[in-house]
Formats: sequence, structure tokens, C-alpha cells
Amino acid sequence: MREILQAVADGELSPRAAEAELQGYVVEEAGRYDAARPARRGIPEAIVGEGKTADEIRELAETALETTDVALVTRLEEHSIDTLADTLDAPDHTVEVDERAALLRVETESPPTLAATVTIVTGGTADGPVAGEATAVLEAIGVTVDRIDDVGVAAIDRLLDERDVIDAADVAIVVAGREGSLPTVVAGLVSTPVIAVPTSTGYGAGGDGEAALMSALQSCTVLTTVNVDAGFVAGAQAGLIARTLDSARSGSED
Amino acid sequence: MREILQAVADGELSPRAAEAELQGYVVEEAGRYDAARPARRGIPEAIVGEGKTADEIRELAETALETTDVALVTRLEEHSIDTLADTLDAPDHTVEVDERAALLRVETESPPTLAATVTIVTGGTADGPVAGEATAVLEAIGVTVDRIDDVGVAAIDRLLDERDVIDAADVAIVVAGREGSLPTVVAGLVSTPVIAVPTSTGYGAGGDGEAALMSALQSCTVLTTVNVDAGFVAGAQAGLIARTLDSARSGSED
Amino acid sequence: MREILQAVADGELSPRAAEAELQGYVVEEAGRYDAARPARRGIPEAIVGEGKTADEIRELAETALETTDVALVTRLEEHSIDTLADTLDAPDHTVEVDERAALLRVETESPPTLAATVTIVTGGTADGPVAGEATAVLEAIGVTVDRIDDVGVAAIDRLLDERDVIDAADVAIVVAGREGSLPTVVAGLVSTPVIAVPTSTGYGAGGDGEAALMSALQSCTVLTTVNVDAGFVAGAQAGLIARTLDSARSGSED
Amino acid sequence: MREILQAVADGELSPRAAEAELQGYVVEEAGRYDAARPARRGIPEAIVGEGKTADEIRELAETALETTDVALVTRLEEHSIDTLADTLDAPDHTVEVDERAALLRVETESPPTLAATVTIVTGGTADGPVAGEATAVLEAIGVTVDRIDDVGVAAIDRLLDERDVIDAADVAIVVAGREGSLPTVVAGLVSTPVIAVPTSTGYGAGGDGEAALMSALQSCTVLTTVNVDAGFVAGAQAGLIARTLDSARSGSED
Amino acid sequence: MREILQAVADGELSPRAAEAELQGYVVEEAGRYDAARPARRGIPEAIVGEGKTADEIRELAETALETTDVALVTRLEEHSIDTLADTLDAPDHTVEVDERAALLRVETESPPTLAATVTIVTGGTADGPVAGEATAVLEAIGVTVDRIDDVGVAAIDRLLDERDVIDAADVAIVVAGREGSLPTVVAGLVSTPVIAVPTSTGYGAGGDGEAALMSALQSCTVLTTVNVDAGFVAGAQAGLIARTLDSARSGSED
Amino acid sequence: MREILQAVADGELSPRAAEAELQGYVVEEAGRYDAARPARRGIPEAIVGEGKTADEIRELAETALETTDVALVTRLEEHSIDTLADTLDAPDHTVEVDERAALLRVETESPPTLAATVTIVTGGTADGPVAGEATAVLEAIGVTVDRIDDVGVAAIDRLLDERDVIDAADVAIVVAGREGSLPTVVAGLVSTPVIAVPTSTGYGAGGDGEAALMSALQSCTVLTTVNVDAGFVAGAQAGLIARTLDSARSGSED
Amino acid sequence: MREILQAVADGELSPRAAEAELQGYVVEEAGRYDAARPARRGIPEAIVGEGKTADEIRELAETALETTDVALVTRLEEHSIDTLADTLDAPDHTVEVDERAALLRVETESPPTLAATVTIVTGGTADGPVAGEATAVLEAIGVTVDRIDDVGVAAIDRLLDERDVIDAADVAIVVAGREGSLPTVVAGLVSTPVIAVPTSTGYGAGGDGEAALMSALQSCTVLTTVNVDAGFVAGAQAGLIARTLDSARSGSED
Amino acid sequence: MREILQAVADGELSPRAAEAELQGYVVEEAGRYDAARPARRGIPEAIVGEGKTADEIRELAETALETTDVALVTRLEEHSIDTLADTLDAPDHTVEVDERAALLRVETESPPTLAATVTIVTGGTADGPVAGEATAVLEAIGVTVDRIDDVGVAAIDRLLDERDVIDAADVAIVVAGREGSLPTVVAGLVSTPVIAVPTSTGYGAGGDGEAALMSALQSCTVLTTVNVDAGFVAGAQAGLIARTLDSARSGSED
Repeated sequence: MREILQAVADGELSPRAAEAELQGYVVEEAGRYDAARPARRGIPEAIVGEGKTADEIRELAETALETTDVALVTRLEEHSIDTLADTLDAPDHTVEVDERAALLRVETESPPTLAATVTIVTGGTADGPVAGEATAVLEAIGVTVDRIDDVGVAAIDRLLDERDVIDAADVAIVVAGREGSLPTVVAGLVSTPVIAVPTSTGYGAGGDGEAALMSALQSCTVLTTVNVDAGFVAGAQAGLIARTLDSARSGSED
Repeated sequence: MREILQAVADGELSPRAAEAELQGYVVEEAGRYDAARPARRGIPEAIVGEGKTADEIRELAETALETTDVALVTRLEEHSIDTLADTLDAPDHTVEVDERAALLRVETESPPTLAATVTIVTGGTADGPVAGEATAVLEAIGVTVDRIDDVGVAAIDRLLDERDVIDAADVAIVVAGREGSLPTVVAGLVSTPVIAVPTSTGYGAGGDGEAALMSALQSCTVLTTVNVDAGFVAGAQAGLIARTLDSARSGSED
Repeated sequence: MREILQAVADGELSPRAAEAELQGYVVEEAGRYDAARPARRGIPEAIVGEGKTADEIRELAETALETTDVALVTRLEEHSIDTLADTLDAPDHTVEVDERAALLRVETESPPTLAATVTIVTGGTADGPVAGEATAVLEAIGVTVDRIDDVGVAAIDRLLDERDVIDAADVAIVVAGREGSLPTVVAGLVSTPVIAVPTSTGYGAGGDGEAALMSALQSCTVLTTVNVDAGFVAGAQAGLIARTLDSARSGSED
Repeated sequence: MREILQAVADGELSPRAAEAELQGYVVEEAGRYDAARPARRGIPEAIVGEGKTADEIRELAETALETTDVALVTRLEEHSIDTLADTLDAPDHTVEVDERAALLRVETESPPTLAATVTIVTGGTADGPVAGEATAVLEAIGVTVDRIDDVGVAAIDRLLDERDVIDAADVAIVVAGREGSLPTVVAGLVSTPVIAVPTSTGYGAGGDGEAALMSALQSCTVLTTVNVDAGFVAGAQAGLIARTLDSARSGSED
Repeated sequence: MREILQAVADGELSPRAAEAELQGYVVEEAGRYDAARPARRGIPEAIVGEGKTADEIRELAETALETTDVALVTRLEEHSIDTLADTLDAPDHTVEVDERAALLRVETESPPTLAATVTIVTGGTADGPVAGEATAVLEAIGVTVDRIDDVGVAAIDRLLDERDVIDAADVAIVVAGREGSLPTVVAGLVSTPVIAVPTSTGYGAGGDGEAALMSALQSCTVLTTVNVDAGFVAGAQAGLIARTLDSARSGSED
Repeated sequence: MREILQAVADGELSPRAAEAELQGYVVEEAGRYDAARPARRGIPEAIVGEGKTADEIRELAETALETTDVALVTRLEEHSIDTLADTLDAPDHTVEVDERAALLRVETESPPTLAATVTIVTGGTADGPVAGEATAVLEAIGVTVDRIDDVGVAAIDRLLDERDVIDAADVAIVVAGREGSLPTVVAGLVSTPVIAVPTSTGYGAGGDGEAALMSALQSCTVLTTVNVDAGFVAGAQAGLIARTLDSARSGSED
Repeated sequence: MREILQAVADGELSPRAAEAELQGYVVEEAGRYDAARPARRGIPEAIVGEGKTADEIRELAETALETTDVALVTRLEEHSIDTLADTLDAPDHTVEVDERAALLRVETESPPTLAATVTIVTGGTADGPVAGEATAVLEAIGVTVDRIDDVGVAAIDRLLDERDVIDAADVAIVVAGREGSLPTVVAGLVSTPVIAVPTSTGYGAGGDGEAALMSALQSCTVLTTVNVDAGFVAGAQAGLIARTLDSARSGSED
Repeated sequence: MREILQAVADGELSPRAAEAELQGYVVEEAGRYDAARPARRGIPEAIVGEGKTADEIRELAETALETTDVALVTRLEEHSIDTLADTLDAPDHTVEVDERAALLRVETESPPTLAATVTIVTGGTADGPVAGEATAVLEAIGVTVDRIDDVGVAAIDRLLDERDVIDAADVAIVVAGREGSLPTVVAGLVSTPVIAVPTSTGYGAGGDGEAALMSALQSCTVLTTVNVDAGFVAGAQAGLIARTLDSARSGSED
């Protein structure tokens, strides 16, 4: 806390920004919005909409906008997306809604485009919303995202056609449910680092993403994984790698 | 039991064969060798070596040879394979040993060759013994077996080279551990019915074949599965299908 | 893709069929209908109704009809079956609805009848919808299906009465929940290859089909299994075997 | 404790018997032998040999003999059975050893034969030791035991032959591993109360008795179960029922 | 089937009863009512209301009444109990409803009272419905039931007060959820055979009856168990024991 | 680190003690002995013997003795206890060995006796070693320990006799395996805070302490638990409570 | 029971209080309110609202108020909290409602303030209701509660700021979900005894509190745990410790 | 394959290197060494020593050396490390042995040093071997590795001291067992991408790395994970990221 105040004293931080920054230390009704973290890691915090009232979400989103220029709200119930989008709309706000992914992104300022690309590969339609979460956080960071959808291993020829595209990316996020073979097959085809995102599709034994998660953990190729449906985490991790790459490519170090 | 005795009375069954057949109904020291079943289903019963003394195994194997012309002993401890092979050797006996698969097959008569082929595909070296069990039971039934080994998805190009061979088979048995993607990938490439055999390779979460089994159960392609390491069951099921095909191709019906 | 265009050039494929075939390579709103697969494996793809809008389902069903002469939609919500049936009705369309199995099948042309029979055995009333899925896919392939319902092991005498019927079939699909003894008992009685379909009946420990699935995996007789409630997969696998048998019996090879 | 002393005062209990009875209340080196319980429930306590030294077992067995006229030691390691049998041998002692079941029974007095019969049914050879535990405790109680071995459902005809024998028993204990169908099939055939004992045979998913236990819990017929390999518990429960029946048949009440 | 027809010919069975009996062999819309089983085991079959229409339930109940003089319908939805009770009401019908246990029992004739008593012990309020299922099936068999409710181990003094009552019963059914200590504690206090019924109370790890079931399986005292919430099975098993006792006490043998 | 050096400068810490204290910050071959923690929490750290060489253990023990006056080594292999006891023996060292609990305690100075008592209750012989771990850590802290052994619920009368003793203690640690009813029963009898220690006794489903752990977590009485066999943790937690009580009783605050 | 009556005879208990006390021994419609327990352990019993009617809850609450001066109702459905609060309101009643924690507390008399403090630490907003349960039971006992909210390890600096506050408390209850690191981190920072309360936040593998519970059980620091979401149990256990401390500090012993 | 031959024709590949490269396509006795993969992904393949004979390992290692200039053998049994090290020693070979990590690395040529650093953080001694696997593969790729050992959260001050060092790395691999809090705490402190490696330390519920793995999957901070003990996979993934960074920093693109 002393660091922030000192920064104000030194003229490195405007009083308004300091005020917002310090709000991260105050207990609010709706739970602390962790304003310190995005500044530290360079990735926006997701405000999980699930189990919060519209008022709580709006308040947290406004604090986020003031502190980090971006508010990313995920897992919104269908009926509250539009209401919230209207509420947060303002002359200097860009509001983007992804209904399928149940999320909403508001920015007061576009992030600078980073010199790094991430490819997101999905196995089927059901993997779309999870890929949407990853896409949203990457775009909020300023990373260019390529999407290659519906290339499940049941029709492997289409995947083989995309081999060069995936190989050219800096990081590949591979989103797949059911038996979850796709991340393993992709990692066997390219030299790009692969992050697997198992999804909660499937039924019976191993349903709810369990088979796909174990598949990622046991993969006979090299890859890392996140939890079932954790599109946000995969996107944020890819964003951290992209930021380092951007620094390297621009000649500066972060 | 009346059927057997009637068959003897009708001259359809020799007294010696009837005696052996009836032994299936008698409780022996080492457990009943189920002589009635192989006759019924056309597949040899496996005598599981695990947890039996050499004497018990030998006795069961001799009953099997008299009744069905073949004795198939699986899960033998290393040190007892050779001893047993020597004991069962005889002028009219063909003894085959597969040390890696820990099994032994003795025949008094070669089975007639069936007009059907089964291809067995394995992902890696560790899948060999399980594939060996499947091979042994198929050969004992008279099925021609093709083996395509070490074509795991980490190096998918080799698998693609074998696509036509697998597609030409009547049944494909796909043996794989770790994340178990191989049966799914194969079933996506060919129109042959695929039987998956998950193997107990792997480590950590989902080890001991759990990930590979769930992968088979959740597969986004069409296939059926057996339990972890159940090479014998997969071979026997493929054998039942092969027998039906052989009848169809030879113009007779079973 | 070159193969398809070449087939057009060679006059083996009409431009319209080629167009539909190629649609399999284009990303559509509602997810790619995998038109290439049914052609390859000879089994219709199931369009899973769950989680799709009526428009998406209709669009996918129409593509399927153009490409493969059949559309099979499963796991439909009750209220949308009739609407969809009406929408898809047309002069040259045969529409069949199975409300209990929550599925709908539309054909522009009846499949040729294959020279192979599959018997579907169920343990109780609750297994009916799952058996219905298997029946629908088999009928869409052209396989003759025999149904033997409600012969659970709690009243084993009825099952024993059906022994010869099951033994005469080319493949037996045995659908059972609770403790799942039925597939094991059937496989002990006949020489037909048995495919077990565990169902998600039951309660408490091992409910949701877990006990029935483990029972199939541990069976002391020879059989293969599919996942819990996977009636479609069992039917499709039996269909692949039936197609091979049909080729064998008609003297040609596929 | 007052009850015991009062019984001594009243001349209903000899001082020596009281001394042994009271030892149940004293902490000994090798753990208290629960002398009070057998007296209360009429079933001998099992002294589990596993993890005890020969001295500890001998001491506990001697206390048991003095108090209840019988010592039942289970789960003995192979090398210690004979040593212990020799040590406990005495002019007025009957020593019985069941090496396969890894147990040993010593009596100073034969129990009176109860007017009740229990039939123990096993599926295969591997179920023998567990059935042996049940047999031993029943014989120690004075119950006549019928054994019907190796009638697994893979060869169901043999089981059907025994239907009347099982139906005539007062209680049937059915011991089976793998998929554990046997207790369900037996309970579907007879009106005798069935106690299932799942055994830890099997391999892969559901191995170690898990599939057999779930099968008993989910059974579509009426039966109760004990834990995996708990032959002693099943025998003791059948013994409690037999004792009640014996009282009923002899016209007295317990 | 021949037996039934023979019984008609011999005048032992009226044509109408035979007709109903034979209906058990015919596939009906709503699933076969297993009329043969109750006759065989002497316990009424439960008609599970869950997932059946009112018409289906009524039809099955009427068949049951004709064949076995009793219809026991369990797991009824709240709104359908009263409707069904009205529908089944008739001059010669006794209708009993237990709303808490969600079941309904109709009799055309009261069962003869058996000379045997069963005590049902519950740990708390939440165990009531499950105990109700056990009570209903026992009363339908003609067994006198004692209920001792709300004697959980958190207040063990009340349980100790009931020790003699439980000890005097022929069988004790102990119904308990949460950590499921009650069956173990009861079996340590009395010499009556104890059947545990774990209930699906509890929360977090081991909730849904898992902890209570494991507790019964691992019990350091002698008892057998049924699956979670399986009040019907426990009651029916106790009924089978009671019937044998009744035969013994009345001097005849079943 | 500055605090330590400042304490030296201020004369509050001898250079030798400071040296030992600082060793906690240096990476050693055998892993850092966490010297800072015992000082902070007032409980000795356990040096786990498992998987360490005799030299590594000795070195860590000596550091512990210098820093905190006590070395507590747990999970020692049988053959290394005596060797280690000899090595660590010295004129000013008190060495205590508990072979059954596989641990060893060395002190250079006896801890002051705290004004607090802890009672440790065990269900059976097999729970002894785990209770031994709890005892050792409590004695090293200076807490007076009462042991009440072998009072399992299968013979509940003995436990009732001890009710007042347990009620008089400040904390009760209840160690039990199998179905783990004992902690629940004890917590229902007394007003002392109860810490449950499930033990890895038992077999089949719920074995390895799983049933006992779930029993503690689901208990219908008030208690907290530690992991299976975690005698050390339970003892240390009781020790922390005892230290607070000792401060309260001596009128000072910690 | 005799004790209560004797107390009346001795004039130590008013007849009305005795009547209420004895109601604990009577079976009521809505389940026995365990009036004997709070008196014994000094902690109010929670009346779980879930699955009870408003009438049943009210009746139990009134019995509780008469017997122990406090009624604590938990897990109430939202719509019934206000109704119940109104019903229980009375001139001499203090009614407190915590809507977020879904509970309600009514007192006829404030408990005496105990000389002990408990700090409750939460990781995030979602942990609030569970912490509320712990708070309510502690306040009903008379313990002063400090709350430190929203100090999850993702922003560890805030937690470090609170180190001294937590260290000064007598007991710390740490409530956290997701991966559940917080109790471990807190126990590594302070010498206060820590009770972990895992919460059912999280998703995918290890969701529903499983990961947080295992984290507490495996913690490399010293702490005890309760089941997932068991805020009441943690609060009650802390209350038992606080009562002992209060006795110690006030110079008397309980 | 054509590519390789073309490369030979174009003079880009020596015949000897081509021969070794092509060996990857030939089935060998000891399983195919996947020579094509390392070339593709730039990371050496691990030859798993477990379950292979010394001859098989040596043969695979020699092929690896010829093809990729490095052989990395993991999970070697203790007695075979030295033998193998001697066998593979040669004038132009650098042999490095890590006995604790049970691995061996042989190089014919040192890899060029990449412009990227990876920090490996471990919680305790037991995590050393797993960290050793990660270190070995990174060094074989040419990445500079920093090790920060024994900074578990039980003594969090030491970890805080290392905050800046970890923050300065390009990737942090955090290896921890027991409750696995360390990766979460580290990811909360720094902006470096974190890869968690759960280790199979721990005991009781959640032992064998299960708690640590779930902790990583549920982490409330951003990180990805690999399977339990999968040090090699974490190292290889960090290596892939490092290679991309090296290209970026050297101005070229891979």
C-alpha cells in the first residue's frame, strides 16, 4: 500500500487511478474486485457472473474499467447479458457480447496489439462456448486469435489440412470433449506448445469431461492442461506467454 | 447331461469324448475346466495360470486337450512357462510359447483355417503382451491375424500409411494405453468394426488403463470395448464374428 | 477433396451429390454435419438434438438427407419431436418417430435389406428407449431387427425360452441396467457375439449405469461393451458387422 | 461387570470362567479378545491372524478356548498355520486346518448341532477360500453346511440342476467375483434368503471385487450383501438366523 | 408355463387366476408385471411408480391384485398418490397410503399373520420414508413390525433404553444416514440378526449415502447390508426370514 | 532474517542458537529442517524417516536438537530404529523409542509440563501405532496424555465405563479404523472437543481408512478430523490447543 | 431420565424446564429436538430447515427456546426465512436473520460473553454463507468473532497484512473453496490452532469442494478439518474449545 | 518419407543421418525409437527405462544419439544406471547421471544455449527427482535452468524472498506434492507463466498426488498443469516455449 501512495507522491500515479487501485484493498459488498492482480500479471481478471446480482456485477465491472480499462464478465445467465450490456454502454465504452459463450467484454481503451498469435482449435460445436472464453481473454490482452473449428478426430482429414496453420502459431489451445483425443493428435502433428482444454461433453462413464481431462493428463505427446471447461485459464496462460513473446520481439524485456 | 448320453446312445459321440465332456460336470481339485463352453461357442477357454499350481494347470490343460484339441494357458509366471511347455510336449502335440505375453498354447490338431482376417493394431511396445493374448486365441480358432505394431498417435503419419490394410480386414482389434486415442483415430479412418483394448500403461491420474478405458467408452467414433488388458476377450469376440463370416463365405450357416 | 472432384470429372458423382459431399468440409453455423463419415463407414451419423435449436437440427437433417438419403436425429426434447417431424415431412420423405426413444428418422429412399439379423434383448421397461436407439440405426442401415423384451434374470425361465432365437441371430445386443447380469447370462447361453449396453437405471452406489457397465467389463463370459445408454453405438457397431456379413453372403466383398 | 460378579456370587458362574470372562475387560499386550461378545451373540469371534505374532495369536486363542470353547483364527500366513496347529494341539482339543482358506479352528467341545441348514454356492475356484471362512464359522456354531461349488453363470445349466437343493436350505450364501451375477441369478431361482459375498477376483476397471459388490447392491432380485471377501461376516449372519430357527424348531425361544 | 396349464387341468387353479398368471409371460405396453416371482418367493413385487404413467401403474396394480391379492406401488410422485388411491378403491379393496414414504398398498385379502416379528430402528426424521418402504412390504407379507424411531448415536442413552426390545425381535432393520454408525452400534448391543439400510442423507464428501454404506460394509460387528435407500429390499429379505421362522414355529416346513 | 540478527545484536539470542536458527535458511543435502516453524508454532516438526538415509536423518535430527531441544523421527523402518537410537545417544540426551509406532524421540531438555490434559482413545490393537505418533508429539510438547485403549463400539459397555474420564480431558483424540463409529459415539457422550483420526484398517470397499474418514466427515455429532493415519497432525493440533489453555491457566497470554 | 426427575425433586430444575427437557425423550411428529445434547455439550443444536415444513420447524424452534434459550435454524429456503422470523418474534425474543447464510437465530436470553476469541477467515465472496453458519453458532455460544474476508491466496499480500490479527486469536476458522490453499497458508503463518472448512465452490475435476477437502487433509502444515460446507460444525468445535478456555481464564473448571 | 529421401537427393541430409532417420519407420525388437518426433518438435524423446532390458535401452539410446545427438533415459532402476553409463561412454560422448532422478543423459554434441530461462521451484526434498526430470530435458534442449528448492508454503517467508527471481524467469515450473498449494501461491506472486507438476507424495485420502493435481486444476490463479510426477512433460513444454522465445530474441522466426 505504501508503494501506491509513494507513486502518487512521486507523480507516477494520478490520484484517481490510485483511488481505484486502493479499492482493491477495501472489502466491498459484492466481494473485492482484485484490481492489483491484473496490473501485476497483465491479464484481466474474470468477473464470474454466476451467483451474483446485476448490481454487484455492474459495480465490479465499473471498478475494473477504471483500474484496468477492461471488464470481462463470464458465465452470465442468458437473460442478464443484454441488460448488463445496456447498463455498461457509454460513449467511450466498447461493449462486446458473446451470447454462446455467455460472456461480455467492455473496454474503455483497446489494448495494444501484441506481436504474437494463438490458434484455438475445437473438436465440435459443443466446444464453442469454452473456446469463446479463451478468445475473449486473449483479445482483451491484445493477442490475435485464429479459430479452427470442428476438426474432431472422427474426420481426421480436415485436421491434417490445418497442420501448417497450427504449426505457425505461437501457442495452440485445443478444446475438446468426449474422449479428448484431439489435443494429443494435434501435439503429435506440430511443434507449437499445446494447451488442452477438456470440455464437459460426453455421457455415462467418464462424462462431464472426466475422460477428456484424463486423456490430456495421460497424453503420449507433450502438452499441458487446465481443468474441464476452463477456457478462461487457458486463454490467460496463453496470454502470459504471448506477452513475453511480444517483449522479446519488440526488443524490450518485461 | 441327458443330451450327451443320448448322443452316445445314438452313436454321435464316442464314449471317450463323452467321458471328457462329462468331466465338465464333475468337481475337480483344481476347479472345473469348462469343457462344455468351448464346444458351444467355438472358442477355446483360457486356463488362467495365475494362482494355480503347476499340477493343477497341467491337469486342466490335459482335460482341455482331450475335449477340444487345444489348451490355452494365460498369465503364467515366467519360471513356470518352460516347465509346463516340457511337461505338455508329446509326439502329437504342437506347443507354442509366447514369453512376452506369458502364455502357452498346445494343440493336438490344427484348427481349420477360417475365411476371415483380423488385424491387431498396437500403439507401443508395452501393448505387445496384451496383443499377444488376442493373437493366441484367434490362432487357436483358426483366424489369420495381421499385426501392425507401434503406430501410436504421437507419430500419426505411420498410422496413415496403414489405413488401407486395416480397412481391408474383417475386424480390427486396437490395443493402446496412456490416453488411448488410437482406437478412436483408427475407427475414424476405416469402415472395419473396431474392438478397443485399453492397456494398463500410464501413470498418475487415470493410470492403470483408466484413461484409456474411458477414452474407448466416450469415443466420438463407433467402436466397442473390453476391460483393461483383456486381450483374450477381444480376440475371442473377434473369433466369434470370424466364425460367422466363415460360415457365410463358405455358403453354409452355423 | 481431390477424390471427390475427380469422381465428378469421371462422371461417378453428380454435381449435386458432390456439392452436398463437399459441404462436409465447410464450417456452418450449426456445426459441420459429417457427411464424409457415413459414406465411408456405411452407417448414418446421429444428429444429437440435445442443445441445438430447431433450425439448426432441421438444417443438419436436410444436408444429411441430400448426402446420405437418411437423417437420424436422437435425444430430442419431447416438445420438438412433432414440430420437427412436420417440418421434415415431404412427398418423397418417409418420417418415423419413436417418442419413447426420443428420436426421429427420415429417409428419402429405403436402404436395401441386408442379409443379416440382429437380436436386441432388454431386461426391463426402462431399457426400452436405449434399445430404440439401437433399433433405429440398424433399420436405417437395412438390418432386420428382432426384439426380445423384458426377460431380466429375476425371472430367468422366460429368458431360457428364447435361447434358440438368440442363438440364431448374427449379433445380439443386450440392453440392461441395475446390476447388469443379463449380457453375461445371455453370452453364457449362446454362441452369437454379444454387445452389452449398460443402462442408467438403478440407484444408490453403482447407480447411473456404473454397476451395469462394470458388470459388462468384468464379465466371466465373452462379450464387448459400449458406454452407458449408448444404444446408438451398439447399433452402429452391429450394423458394421452386418454389412460385412451381407457382403460375404452375397458373394461380393466390400 | 457387576453382572458377572453377581453370577459368581449366585453360583451360576465358576470362578475360572469368570476370570476368563473378566479378562475381556483387561488391556493385554496383544489386544483384548472380546470374550463378552461371543457369549452375547452366540457366534465365535474371529481372531484375525494378519499382523499379529505367533505368541499373540496363541495367547488370544487360549483365552478364547477357555471362555467360549472355540478359537477361530483367520487370515493366517501360510508358514504359521502348521506351527500354530501344533502349539494348540492338546488331548481335549479338536484342531481343524483349512490351508486354502488360511484358517484354523480349535474346539474343546463340539457345538450342539442346530436344526437349520445353510447352503454355500460358489462361482469358481477363486471363491473357495472365502467360502471356507463362511463354512468354518458356521460349523463352529453347529450349523450343517452344504457346499455347491463352481456353478458360475458362464455355464448356467449346472446351476439350474441345483435349484431344488438351494431352495430347500434355510439360508443361501452365494460367493462370486468378476461381474458377480451369481447371487442375483440364484435369488431369482429360489425362495431362500440369499446373502451375497462378492470376492476380489477380476482385473482392470471394477477389479478387486468392486463390480461384484455393486452388482449385489444393485441386484434386481431380493438379497443382502457383505463387504468384498467377507466370508466370516456372511457365515456369522447366517449363523444368527440359524440359531433363531433352531430355537423355533425345538419349540423354545432364545 | 406347462405347470400352470397342468394346474388348471388338475383343478388347482381357476381359469381366471391362470389367465392373470399367464399375463406375466406376455409383453405388455407398460412392462411385464412379474406375477410368477411373488408366488415363488412369497413376497409381493414392488411396482416402481417413478417414470410410469398413471394408466400404466393402474394396469400393473390390477394385474398384481388379481394374481397375488396385493399391489404395492413405491416411489410415487406426490400428486399421483391420491388419484391412484381413488382409482384403485373398490368394495373389497383395502387401500393404505403412506405419503411420507411415497407409497400405496392395496389388498383384496389380508395376509395371514406370521409368527415372527421385525423391529425397524431409525436414526432420525430423514430416515422415515425409507423405513416406511420396509414397513409396507413386511405388512403385506403379514409380519408384525415394531418401529423405534429417532434413536441416533448422537444421543446414545435413548438407544440403550431400547436394547431389550431390539434383542427380542427376530430380525432388526436399522435405517441410518450421515456417518451410519447406528447399525454397527445396534449389532454390538443385541444378538438379533441386523440388516443395515444406509440412507442418502448427508452432504459433502461421502454424502448421498456413500459414507453410511461403507460404514455398513466395514462394520466391526456382524451385519449384512442393502444399497442406499433400499428399504424395500431390506423389508423383503426380513420377510423371507420371517416366513421360514413362521413355518418352523407352526411345525410345518415351507 | 534481519529479526534473528537483530536479536543477536540485542543479546536476546546466543550466536550458536542463531547459527542453528539460520541453518533453516540454507539448502542442505537432505532437505531443510524447518527450524523456524517449531519456534513459531511451539510444536516440534516431525522428521519423516521414510525415504531418507540414516545419515540424512541423523543430520536433520542433530540440527533439530540444537535448535529446538527435541528431535522427533517418525515412520522409521524397523531395522534402522535401533541404529539411530544408538547414534543419537549422548550424555545429555534422553532417547525414547516406540517400536510399534515406528518412531524415536530425543530430547536435550525435558519440556515444561503444560497445565492441560489430552485423552487418546483407540478402538483396537491396529490403531496403536497411530495413537503412538499422537502421544509422542504431545509428550514432546509437555502435555500429559491419558490412553484408553481397545474400547471399540462392538463392545460398547467398556466405552460407557470410561465416559467420565474422557469428559474430564481438555481434548480427546479418538483413533479408529474399519467403519469408524468410535469418534461419533464418543462425541455424543462427552462435552470435550473431539479430534478424529481414521486409521487404514479394514478391507474391500472403503478399506484403507476411506470408510472411517468419511464417517468422521459425515458425523452427526460435532468433531473435526485429520487424514487417515495422521496421528502426528492430531497430536500437534491438540498440542496447540493445550498450549493456549496452559497460558490461560497460568494467567499469562501467549 | 432419573437424573432429571431427581433434579426436580431437589429443586434444582423447575417443572416447566423439566417438561421441556423430557420432551427430548418423546417421539414427536417432526423428529425429536435433541434437547439433551446442547445441555451436555454447551452448544446449541442446529435445526436443519431443509426438508421440513414451516410448522415442524416452528415447533422444534419453540422447544429449543424453552429448553436452551436459543433456537438456531439453518439451511432455510429463501421464502420461508421472513415468515419464520415473524412467527418466532415475541416481546422477549431477539431474532436475527442472515439471509446470505440462509439461517435464523432466536434467543430469549443473550449468552454470557466468553473470554475467548475466534477469527474466521474467508477466501472469497462465495465462502460467505458458510462462514455465516460458523459465526451464528459461535455468537449463540457467546464467543466474540472476528471476520477477515476475501483474503484468498491469489492476492497474498492482503493476507500477510492480517497475520498478527489471526495470530492473536484463540482459534482460527479458515473457509475456502476452489483449490483450498488458504487454510494451509494461514497455518504456516500463525501459531493459532486452525480449523479448515472447505467450500463447494469450483468446477470440473475436484469441484464441489473435493479439491479443497483433500487439500486440508493433505496439508503440509498442522490443521484439522470438517466436511465440505460444514460451517456449523467448525463453529461448534471452536465453541467447545472457547468454553474450555473461558473456564481456564475465569479460574473455574468446567 | 519422400521428404527425407528428397533431402538426401538435395544434399541437405547425409546418407547416414537419413538411415538413422528412416529407422524410425522400421519395427525393431525393443520398440520404435521415435526419431521423427524430436526432429519435428525440437525436444528429445525420453526413453523410459522401466520394463526394458539393458540391451533394449542401449540400442534405443544409440539410435537416438545418431539421429538427434542426445539420448535421455528416464525411470531407470538403480542397479542399471551405472552399467548403462559405462556402456554408453565413448570419446565423443558426454554422459551425465542423476541418480536421485533415476535418469541418464548422453550427448554427442552440446545443444546451443537458448536465450531463455526457466526457473524450477520445489516444495520439499521429495519433489527433487521429479524436478530432476524437468531439468534434464531442459538442459538437453539448451535452456538455462534456475533451481529454487525447498520453499514449501509451511514456511512461506523463504518463498517471498525468491519472488523477484521467479518473476524474472520466462517460465516457472513449480513441483509440489501433499496439498499442492505451492503452484497457486507462486502464480499469485509473479507474472511469469506457471506450469504445475503435482508429485505423488502424501498419504491417506488424496495421496499419490491426487490432492496436488486437483489443487492445480482448481487453482484460483492462472496456471496449467501436467499429470502427477510428469517432470519430463513439464520440462519439454517449457522447452517448446523457450525455443519460440529464443527465435524471437534472436530476431529469426522458427
